Amino acid sequence: MDRQKHYDELIAWYKDFQLVSRISSVLQWDQRTYMPKLGMASRAEQLALIDGLAHRKLTEPAMVAKLNELAAVQAELSEDQRVNLREIKREVDRATKVPNDLVEEISRHTAKSNAAWVEAREADNFNHFAPFLARMIELRKLEAAALGFADRPYDAALDLFEPGSTEPYVRKLLEDLRQRLVPFVHKVLGAEKHDDSLILREPFPIDKQREFGLMVIGKLGFNFDEGRQDISAHPFTIGSKGDVRITTRFNERDLRQSLFAMIHEAGHALYEMGLPDEHVDTPLGQSVSLAVHESQSRFFENTLGRSLAFWTYFYPDLKAAFPTQLGGVPLLKFYEAVNIVAPSLIRVEADEVTYNLHIVLRFEIERAFMAGEVAVADLPDLWRAKVKQYLDIDAPNDADGVLQDVHWSEGLIGYFPTYTMGNLYGAQLREKIMADLGDIGVLCARGEFAPILNWMREHVHRLGKRYTANELIERATGKKPTAEPFMRYLAEKYGPLYHL
Amino acid sequence: MDRQKHYDELIAWYKDFQLVSRISSVLQWDQRTYMPKLGMASRAEQLALIDGLAHRKLTEPAMVAKLNELAAVQAELSEDQRVNLREIKREVDRATKVPNDLVEEISRHTAKSNAAWVEAREADNFNHFAPFLARMIELRKLEAAALGFADRPYDAALDLFEPGSTEPYVRKLLEDLRQRLVPFVHKVLGAEKHDDSLILREPFPIDKQREFGLMVIGKLGFNFDEGRQDISAHPFTIGSKGDVRITTRFNERDLRQSLFAMIHEAGHALYEMGLPDEHVDTPLGQSVSLAVHESQSRFFENTLGRSLAFWTYFYPDLKAAFPTQLGGVPLLKFYEAVNIVAPSLIRVEADEVTYNLHIVLRFEIERAFMAGEVAVADLPDLWRAKVKQYLDIDAPNDADGVLQDVHWSEGLIGYFPTYTMGNLYGAQLREKIMADLGDIGVLCARGEFAPILNWMREHVHRLGKRYTANELIERATGKKPTAEPFMRYLAEKYGPLYHL
Repeated sequence: MDRQKHYDELIAWYKDFQLVSRISSVLQWDQRTYMPKLGMASRAEQLALIDGLAHRKLTEPAMVAKLNELAAVQAELSEDQRVNLREIKREVDRATKVPNDLVEEISRHTAKSNAAWVEAREADNFNHFAPFLARMIELRKLEAAALGFADRPYDAALDLFEPGSTEPYVRKLLEDLRQRLVPFVHKVLGAEKHDDSLILREPFPIDKQREFGLMVIGKLGFNFDEGRQDISAHPFTIGSKGDVRITTRFNERDLRQSLFAMIHEAGHALYEMGLPDEHVDTPLGQSVSLAVHESQSRFFENTLGRSLAFWTYFYPDLKAAFPTQLGGVPLLKFYEAVNIVAPSLIRVEADEVTYNLHIVLRFEIERAFMAGEVAVADLPDLWRAKVKQYLDIDAPNDADGVLQDVHWSEGLIGYFPTYTMGNLYGAQLREKIMADLGDIGVLCARGEFAPILNWMREHVHRLGKRYTANELIERATGKKPTAEPFMRYLAEKYGPLYHL
Repeated sequence: MDRQKHYDELIAWYKDFQLVSRISSVLQWDQRTYMPKLGMASRAEQLALIDGLAHRKLTEPAMVAKLNELAAVQAELSEDQRVNLREIKREVDRATKVPNDLVEEISRHTAKSNAAWVEAREADNFNHFAPFLARMIELRKLEAAALGFADRPYDAALDLFEPGSTEPYVRKLLEDLRQRLVPFVHKVLGAEKHDDSLILREPFPIDKQREFGLMVIGKLGFNFDEGRQDISAHPFTIGSKGDVRITTRFNERDLRQSLFAMIHEAGHALYEMGLPDEHVDTPLGQSVSLAVHESQSRFFENTLGRSLAFWTYFYPDLKAAFPTQLGGVPLLKFYEAVNIVAPSLIRVEADEVTYNLHIVLRFEIERAFMAGEVAVADLPDLWRAKVKQYLDIDAPNDADGVLQDVHWSEGLIGYFPTYTMGNLYGAQLREKIMADLGDIGVLCARGEFAPILNWMREHVHRLGKRYTANELIERATGKKPTAEPFMRYLAEKYGPLYHL
């Protein structure tokens, strides 16, 4: 066997597979931004065709054989080659270990389950959705068994979204966070309230919002030769190196919604743009995990984007863009208004302090139902109890309670924790950046974002999938991931803000 | 053999092939409208992958065998089935008769030839392009031979773009046209000149141009649930039933450019939108030819869009959209300005009277070089002589002469005549519409476009590929296609306009 030749063939084949994914990205982006309504029927078939093509590519017997031959002699490969081999093998294993019948059944059930969830949510009737969720849990357990996680089905789910994570690892992080965060939230909620009525009096024309947002993300390093921004009902980032696209939803009555969502998605995009060119379309050129992705989006959105220093730099421009709306609003009032902490029923509307409690409760619930420790029928009550305990809210219904998120209906179990892990990772990276670069507030206040982005590029982006997410964070920061840096960040920021 | 089952399988397979084409359309549309610059490298590979997939689909041996079995018993099929079979067979034959080596060589040569043309045009140096054109002609002749047109290579070229057309058919139409048109053009050019300085004094904001254009094409019947409009460097229409997209280039200094291009592309789009739903993605649900497509775009752009009656209806709205620009411009002045006849060097800038002479000269030249009657080296002089003879212009260089169009560099030989045939077909359809509906000017002046569109739907759009283009025109109008209706149209319109 000529190892180098084998390896090159494997990589060429994998790049073809990635090419198919890129086509899928364009079709999905188009569907959610510009596609005319009547294009939907054909688009669904187009995507099914592309999905089938991708799956056939990834499971091509000749290539799977080549992959396994190479895996048997991997000690003789270079370190880079071993990383690519390991990650390609992980993906191929996933695609080959689960029987086709099960894949198809999950896919069929997902469509039905999602439709049932839409109806159940509209009618505020959890019982209508319950049997579909129960079946989804069964199917995910069957999948876990096929993947070799028979005894730890939730680990299989985590491994899909956050490779290298296990239930004990996530549980420790999130329990530790919850124990510190619940009293902190209660303390903030007991403090004086800030007011945003001052900045909400006048409408903000959408073209001006867009222009300002584009200027901001451009300053942060978003390369418009390598990406673009469009409008969609729900903001998202799609695409990869060379072609990374973000979308925004605008609200004329509240510029905060579009502004911070744009910075958030730009954070995702900057990660993709920062991946190493020389490894494009191979694992060494791909983002490592959802949590690390979220660490980037949240870092740019919250750590930088909602800081006083950031607005010290940008607020004069913002006032110039919206003179009648913000002319009489002092910087500090604006800063307070973009950092209001208030308990909310709805996760996607939550502030950065309470947000993670929404995630913790979802993690606890999904972990429990995957372990068979709670019956599906009991989920609404369990949800209410936790919302009351963590956020001190009495949930008025299930539509805005256990039925509020689309994830479980689509089989996305094990996805939620990546949001909070992203917040924790981001805060841990922040402390190391401060140790290396000094007070990044001063850089932000001067509009000097390049050193911060370059730090992220060097310690996160350029590594691709070289390490697992937790290894990467440990290497970048010198410490195992914990909840402490995030709690320090909250205390440091919200202590003065709320006179705690 | 179960004929119905065989036929159904064939259609399902062909629809899969069309699905691949639809994916290609989305990728091409995106490339020419929104794709970031750095997306190009991967996009070229994505399109190559999709092209390869389409070609493999179309030449799948099991399906080609099924097709031929069905063709052997086609007398037993329904009429609809026979049409689909005939057209699918035509496409499959094209894809299978030409050896792969030749297909690949043409594809490689096209890339080189196009690059050489770009350089030659920039440097105004025909000699740089000449060997590439000579090789392109050789390759197209080899292709013609493979397709069974060894003795009539230009027929093979025509058959590709305008199935059912032959050189004698096209030659007769175009020679007849030339003989009548050259003296007519000379008469117009000898008449008084009209003036457009009145409407060009002020800039026309692009968002207003776009808004007005969208309103106009909406009134003409463009369905925005089934299509959309975007901006690109060169206007085009792409997509099919359910998802038809047009693009526009805007010029702030001259609203005529965007306006008539939008109506032109909308004419193409209305054809696609008018194809029969029940035959979607099969030949019975596809446009019949480029010339018939052009008959639709030109009919809407010129016959309706540049008529006095059309502007009797729309001009008040246009003035309201551009009060400072057009407030003082009377309807008749505007009408004259959008119908100025002036000889030009450049085809794409030509008016509807002189336009077809640009085509006639290209047809005469490409017919001659495909027949080996003229050497490539002699083309620049031949071009100059014809431009002088037909348009009375002394061509100052080759860049705006024989090098002006991209077509030949991309192997598009036999494409030009479809533009003029479209104009002739459109004029012939117009006379029959007038015979059936009465003076369509009155309908236009009232903004009642539905009867006109419905006539086109019934007599052209809904027929798909049931007949060849010339059969379709003959059935729709009761007469074989000739140049006479077009000449009558010109005389009727430009006689009064220029006091001929």
